Amino acid sequence: MPFQPTDYLPYDFANRRHIGPSEDEMAKMLEIVGAESLDELIEYTVPRAIRQDTPLEFGKAKSERDLLHHMRMTASKNRVLTSMIGQGYYGTVTPPAIQRNILENPAWYTAYTPYQPEISQGRLEALLNFQTMVSDLTGLEIANASLLDEATAAAEAMTMAQRISKSKVGAFFVDRDCHPQTIAVIQTRAEPLDIKVIVGDPDEMDAEAVFGAIFQYPGTYGHLRDFTEQIAALHSAKAIGVVAADLMALTLLKEPGAMGADIAVGSTQRFGVPMGYGGPHAAYMATREQYARSMPGRLVGVSVDAHGNRAYRLSLQTREQHIRREKATSNVCTAQALLAVMAGMYAVFHGPKGLKAIAQRIHRKTVRLAQGLEQAGFVVEPDRFFDTITVDVGPLQAAVMKSAVDEGINLRRVKDTSVGISLDECTSPADIEALWRAFGIVRLDDGFSPEYRLPESLMRTSEYLTHPIFHMNRAETEMMRYMRRLADRDLALDRAMIPLGSCTMKLNAAAEMMPISWREFANLHPFAPRDQAQGYHELIEDLSAKLCAITGYDAMSLQPNSGAQGEYAGLLAIASWHRANRQGHRNICLIPNSAHGTNPASAQMVGWKVVPVRTAENGDIDLQDFRAKAEKYSDALAACMITYPSTHGVFEETVHEVCEITHEHGGQVYIDGANMNAMVGLGRPGDLGGDVSHLNLHKTFAIPHGGGGPGMGPIGVKKHLIEHLPGHPETDSEQGPVSAAPYGSASILAISWAYCLLMGGDGLTQASRVAILSANYIARRLEGAYDVLYKGRTGRVAHECILDTRPFAESANVTVDDIAKRLIDNGFHAPTMSWPVAGTLMIEPTESETKAEIDRFCDAMLAIREEIRAIETGEMDRENNPLKNAPHTMEDLVREWDRPYSREQGCFPPGAFRVDKYWPPVNRVDNAYGDRNLVCSCPPMEDYAEAAE
Amino acid sequence: MPFQPTDYLPYDFANRRHIGPSEDEMAKMLEIVGAESLDELIEYTVPRAIRQDTPLEFGKAKSERDLLHHMRMTASKNRVLTSMIGQGYYGTVTPPAIQRNILENPAWYTAYTPYQPEISQGRLEALLNFQTMVSDLTGLEIANASLLDEATAAAEAMTMAQRISKSKVGAFFVDRDCHPQTIAVIQTRAEPLDIKVIVGDPDEMDAEAVFGAIFQYPGTYGHLRDFTEQIAALHSAKAIGVVAADLMALTLLKEPGAMGADIAVGSTQRFGVPMGYGGPHAAYMATREQYARSMPGRLVGVSVDAHGNRAYRLSLQTREQHIRREKATSNVCTAQALLAVMAGMYAVFHGPKGLKAIAQRIHRKTVRLAQGLEQAGFVVEPDRFFDTITVDVGPLQAAVMKSAVDEGINLRRVKDTSVGISLDECTSPADIEALWRAFGIVRLDDGFSPEYRLPESLMRTSEYLTHPIFHMNRAETEMMRYMRRLADRDLALDRAMIPLGSCTMKLNAAAEMMPISWREFANLHPFAPRDQAQGYHELIEDLSAKLCAITGYDAMSLQPNSGAQGEYAGLLAIASWHRANRQGHRNICLIPNSAHGTNPASAQMVGWKVVPVRTAENGDIDLQDFRAKAEKYSDALAACMITYPSTHGVFEETVHEVCEITHEHGGQVYIDGANMNAMVGLGRPGDLGGDVSHLNLHKTFAIPHGGGGPGMGPIGVKKHLIEHLPGHPETDSEQGPVSAAPYGSASILAISWAYCLLMGGDGLTQASRVAILSANYIARRLEGAYDVLYKGRTGRVAHECILDTRPFAESANVTVDDIAKRLIDNGFHAPTMSWPVAGTLMIEPTESETKAEIDRFCDAMLAIREEIRAIETGEMDRENNPLKNAPHTMEDLVREWDRPYSREQGCFPPGAFRVDKYWPPVNRVDNAYGDRNLVCSCPPMEDYAEAAE
Repeated sequence: MPFQPTDYLPYDFANRRHIGPSEDEMAKMLEIVGAESLDELIEYTVPRAIRQDTPLEFGKAKSERDLLHHMRMTASKNRVLTSMIGQGYYGTVTPPAIQRNILENPAWYTAYTPYQPEISQGRLEALLNFQTMVSDLTGLEIANASLLDEATAAAEAMTMAQRISKSKVGAFFVDRDCHPQTIAVIQTRAEPLDIKVIVGDPDEMDAEAVFGAIFQYPGTYGHLRDFTEQIAALHSAKAIGVVAADLMALTLLKEPGAMGADIAVGSTQRFGVPMGYGGPHAAYMATREQYARSMPGRLVGVSVDAHGNRAYRLSLQTREQHIRREKATSNVCTAQALLAVMAGMYAVFHGPKGLKAIAQRIHRKTVRLAQGLEQAGFVVEPDRFFDTITVDVGPLQAAVMKSAVDEGINLRRVKDTSVGISLDECTSPADIEALWRAFGIVRLDDGFSPEYRLPESLMRTSEYLTHPIFHMNRAETEMMRYMRRLADRDLALDRAMIPLGSCTMKLNAAAEMMPISWREFANLHPFAPRDQAQGYHELIEDLSAKLCAITGYDAMSLQPNSGAQGEYAGLLAIASWHRANRQGHRNICLIPNSAHGTNPASAQMVGWKVVPVRTAENGDIDLQDFRAKAEKYSDALAACMITYPSTHGVFEETVHEVCEITHEHGGQVYIDGANMNAMVGLGRPGDLGGDVSHLNLHKTFAIPHGGGGPGMGPIGVKKHLIEHLPGHPETDSEQGPVSAAPYGSASILAISWAYCLLMGGDGLTQASRVAILSANYIARRLEGAYDVLYKGRTGRVAHECILDTRPFAESANVTVDDIAKRLIDNGFHAPTMSWPVAGTLMIEPTESETKAEIDRFCDAMLAIREEIRAIETGEMDRENNPLKNAPHTMEDLVREWDRPYSREQGCFPPGAFRVDKYWPPVNRVDNAYGDRNLVCSCPPMEDYAEAAE
Repeated sequence: MPFQPTDYLPYDFANRRHIGPSEDEMAKMLEIVGAESLDELIEYTVPRAIRQDTPLEFGKAKSERDLLHHMRMTASKNRVLTSMIGQGYYGTVTPPAIQRNILENPAWYTAYTPYQPEISQGRLEALLNFQTMVSDLTGLEIANASLLDEATAAAEAMTMAQRISKSKVGAFFVDRDCHPQTIAVIQTRAEPLDIKVIVGDPDEMDAEAVFGAIFQYPGTYGHLRDFTEQIAALHSAKAIGVVAADLMALTLLKEPGAMGADIAVGSTQRFGVPMGYGGPHAAYMATREQYARSMPGRLVGVSVDAHGNRAYRLSLQTREQHIRREKATSNVCTAQALLAVMAGMYAVFHGPKGLKAIAQRIHRKTVRLAQGLEQAGFVVEPDRFFDTITVDVGPLQAAVMKSAVDEGINLRRVKDTSVGISLDECTSPADIEALWRAFGIVRLDDGFSPEYRLPESLMRTSEYLTHPIFHMNRAETEMMRYMRRLADRDLALDRAMIPLGSCTMKLNAAAEMMPISWREFANLHPFAPRDQAQGYHELIEDLSAKLCAITGYDAMSLQPNSGAQGEYAGLLAIASWHRANRQGHRNICLIPNSAHGTNPASAQMVGWKVVPVRTAENGDIDLQDFRAKAEKYSDALAACMITYPSTHGVFEETVHEVCEITHEHGGQVYIDGANMNAMVGLGRPGDLGGDVSHLNLHKTFAIPHGGGGPGMGPIGVKKHLIEHLPGHPETDSEQGPVSAAPYGSASILAISWAYCLLMGGDGLTQASRVAILSANYIARRLEGAYDVLYKGRTGRVAHECILDTRPFAESANVTVDDIAKRLIDNGFHAPTMSWPVAGTLMIEPTESETKAEIDRFCDAMLAIREEIRAIETGEMDRENNPLKNAPHTMEDLVREWDRPYSREQGCFPPGAFRVDKYWPPVNRVDNAYGDRNLVCSCPPMEDYAEAAE
């Protein structure tokens, strides 16, 4: 009998798993959209001129099983040795309950940044725990919700110091005992801002000559010093004192606040977040209350909701989304939320006693190690230390390092004759003996009696983590339930579509996420010898090659660990190229009005002047204005920054012209890759005329948003810019680094790689096509009810569309905020609000939402329009209506219902699930109240008692 | 400076993580309980006479990190080869989304059996999917919610056939092509029931001579035959036809229902559940509608709630919990819920087209493999096959098997000269080539054109999986949300205490769960060569040794894969020993009235007569009655079965006497280990006089309940019984097996082992002590409000306590059911209801609940008592009150509220969380309706539409 196989490919990940609409659904969508076929739709939507010639060719897409096998093979090429390298990265024990219930739980990792506080109370509380932990341990009143890494946090501290210092001098002092990558990133950052960086011995610092200074504590080689005097001197000179401090050490040591520091920065990696060959993990920044409003980054605060109940929110949020663009001096609003949540939970998990005990164990082991070395005649530096020592081994440096590797241990190479040794939570007695053996010492236990070798004057005397949350019962049962309760308060992708324009909230598949938990990816130190990281390098090379093929660039740098970092790195490369061409004076950057806010901020950061370009009536770049300005600034034109497809969600046909004009006038073209999800496989920014682009791997390439980080923002460049890509002190490059680690948050590159391998070239292309279909389907379904603000020449949008809600302000007293909050009642996260045009909603469904879910959303939007109409006709009150009172909570149902509409109408608008309805834990949050009354650490116990009532 | 370490041990898993009450909390609890110290409480609670002399000594307890390292080292001693052994176990691809969102999600794995339907709608729906899948694929009207494994399911089918057959003969025919372990388990089961088992060729079966017959399809060596004729013959003889069928094959092949089969059984392991060296996985059973009420196992059905809305529930549940004890003939009500959920989701994930495609791929690969072998001159048997072939290699059997191992493949040894080869979902082209190489064939691709080699007459013509649930959009986004929605409908340990007396719902720690996902534990075939399973054998030996030390027995059998199976195996051992001592006539088993229902069922299953023993006034065994009956049946006394501490939650002081009396009269003592959680480290059943005990690893040793399975019920025996422990055809033992695999559900043994390693001897002992403290604390807190039914001589309970709620029936028209449902409003799963005493609640908090959670529960119970009081005083109506109307749903809040109490009172009784309140998705479920209207597969689409309204 002949074999008649079904035509169904059961393991086809792209079409069966990743892409939301089924074939039948797509057919129906095309019908509504009015296109014969997907091919036709794309043909008429994506201008011929921008289409790429050849399809993406990545070989056969892998099944999930093949993928995991491939990942395992790759992982096995990484050798996980015991790291004693230190230098800001330490072994740590991720509590299994945290790993399973947070890192591996889609309720946490698929969440978006908590801009909509009503649906984010869980992660806001977790981040508030993080802030409280940082604030307590550093002894400073206020901490933000994390930054990218210690080195960039230090650079941010420098620019913040410049902002808040009353000193007028232009130099910044850097402790030579700062970690080398920190010094290097500070230098990178300072150069275009004309800040002079003085690296030196803090004892020799001239406080009068600087606007601020940063000191490392403990120093990179283990030294412990009290910077009280230096900071006092800085204060006398109206300068700012910054301390880069290790939080683990601070559980035993005098805190920066007690030294008078104005700012503290550092990493929380060793609080339960694996090293991941560089990241991701959360850096922190804390400062005095008076500087709170100058601090970069997100800040979770406490406010009240419409009923006066306590509610968390992002404080001072307006400065982030509505930043005064041309004045921006920092684009690091990016956080590492998921990792900050983990670090905060680690502190909740262990509490102050536990953290102290862990720190003591680390210290005791270090003392023991040092004693053994000293007894064998080695000179251990410094004499007093926490967890890090340095041993001068003269010409035997290489021999000792190799001997250590043979014993399964990586040491740090320090200068030419020393080795650095840092211990951590994971160091075992066997590790210490192995290390001794590496030094040629055979030593048995000899009644070691531990002593503190911390300087007595630096012993911490103040309390920390006194808040009840750090004293909750630490039984795993209770911790597990706490994490579940927080997760349940939030709405993430695992429950509903998050149709955020420009944010591309697509599926983060389980198979893509699994490998990051594997020790071979998780436990590598970023500065581990390259031959121990072969798996990583295979991954990095292949992913780079694929990203180059996708973008049409010649090389990629995977260093930038956020989209904004990528922009910045890209512009730095352009600036460096101009300098190399003796065009260093070029400092004008043309940026359309509709650009992402990070664009002008990045331009500022490389010292350029932003010249805005007008938007034409149809939303496109005003070509006439663009040409006029390019001509006007021809001699000084450094670059233009454009986004493609545009932030208006349209494939502009003039992109080639814009690029040509820029090049004609000696400028370079930066194409923002934020919207690459409409482009992959269809067109390549490199072919359009771009010289540089960054990609948001956390948008287009399936890295989850993690509730506001991690992300990765690699940049692709044309050949001429390759040598201007970021370097790193660990890799002997000419160029300075932009991030602490050579490959940024390396471990999550595995997610994007897995995504590419699972999708294949065809699958990636199909994803772009379906993303465009879905956006056009929404635009068509909502047509008539809402005005779609911008369309292409053929009447199509790209992968997102902007709805104009401005008319309702007058007609019905309804704001875009009201609609956003009402969508919560429908069970949705709002689309992007008031960006790129105030008073509008930008909707991006992505390819991975099903038609059913998209329809649920459209039903909700149409019902909202009907409610608006009812207000317009006077059928509903202009103040007391479901929109103004949204979101409705369970409490609303319990209390007296005095609304002019029914409970049913209020709580179950079309689109809302019935049994599975999501209930926000609070009513509408009062933003103004929170900003007026800035409270950014856990509220006192009484509040909890109250809330428990 | 001297080192003054904190006394806090941060990695002390037992005290910081596993044991719920903190030290402070314990102090407060002791105060309430009225004991000076925990030592004192234990001293006065656990009779001196039963205390063990020496503490448990297991060496230092491991930290979680050390544990995981140790598990990894152990895992690495298992060699995972490609299995082509078949014989009922196959490689399968667990979809990563299912692995992460179900198997690794505490919302699923910590759930209890869905006896309380209102809080179990999610898993009930998932199990209904499973039943529908089985029913469709087998072509029989009704399927249960899973059984333990294929072999026990076959044995159950035999006894069911006997029950429903109208034939009076006492023999059962077994196809010789059944899997050897199936035949062996059937033989074990048949023997004590006096069923004659005839193993033979179906063509030679004498239908008149049997009450039923079982045929394997496909046969264990790959043969495919149509049993229509045989079944017709059976029917003519009033006998029953059973087909053991592979569900994967049934996607292509004529279904058992179409052959006229009355019953179908089999395994669903290859539907996404890893082999796990034997288990766990879900077996299935399906039958004709007319036999539904005779089918063993749990049955999920459709009913309505108090408002007439559709609701799922366990049908015919009464027969399980209120089984007519002395009449029981099966104790297999145990299911493998978690694994059935996974298998059902696998079918939802792939749908009929996907499953068919997978089956076709398997078949095509098998054809290709066979062609290669045939072209090289080998004779492949049979000529027509699905996935399994047999090749006669003459005297080269061992050589070929070894050669295959060298190629990374395990084959099956068939008789003395053949090898069996079974392919599966995981077989790759490379595997086929490797296998050819093992046969000495070097063969390149040669334009293979696939052909069906299925018998044309057996090609399936009917449809299956037509229900919309198997046609839902299979995008991972949608699947993830579906799994989340179902999980959210249920209340499991990850949200609240489940204070189920006798069920020991304790923490299942993340670290304990992680290793079962590792491929080295997950992907081993149960009959893989022992030298490839060294890790498993280390685990098994060490766990056995620890369990022996804990129980005071001399050996353990880890074969029984449920508690009931353990009982049965233990009694079989006793019976076998009696026979060996020429006392085979002994057939009386003394069982106290308060015993678990499974006790008498097990006794029946070994052919014994159950003689109940009365309960004394104080709840203890009536010693006088016991002695009298032992004397009366002295010559025939086979055994007594007791539980210690008693099912009344009391440490009876007469236990030694009971054992002595039994032994005096020639009987053996079976001590049911269900309550071992009150004993570990304190006393040992082996020391009390027990000859055999089973342990519930899913109660005492941290295996999660998984929503109603998996479990493990190993048995410990004294030396004289060792040779009577279950054997297995794969291990050449004299004794017959009770389970399909030699070590039962081997992979989850890793959980119990991890638990022991994390706790250490001290930790395990402390767990028992704290479990006793917590139960006494509850008893004391509820005193006055409720009567505690039984206490020990010193006024203490053991690890659980029974509250008498019978008086409220008259005083307030309140039943135990009303209280249970009202507890749902408080956010709790009810305690065990009406067992062991009708009209009571049995509460067991376990050691891993915090005082805060226990207090929340006590507050809820006290508030309920006040509500009862209000009814008693007439303050509240006897019919329309919060107890009768419980549980309250969100829908109650939305609709008109016409209750004589407030919404607040109804929905937020004391103990209920406010923001984090759990809302049951349905109101009280009508059990009677569901039993009258038995619907046990997914309801039709219209119902879904309705429900969606």
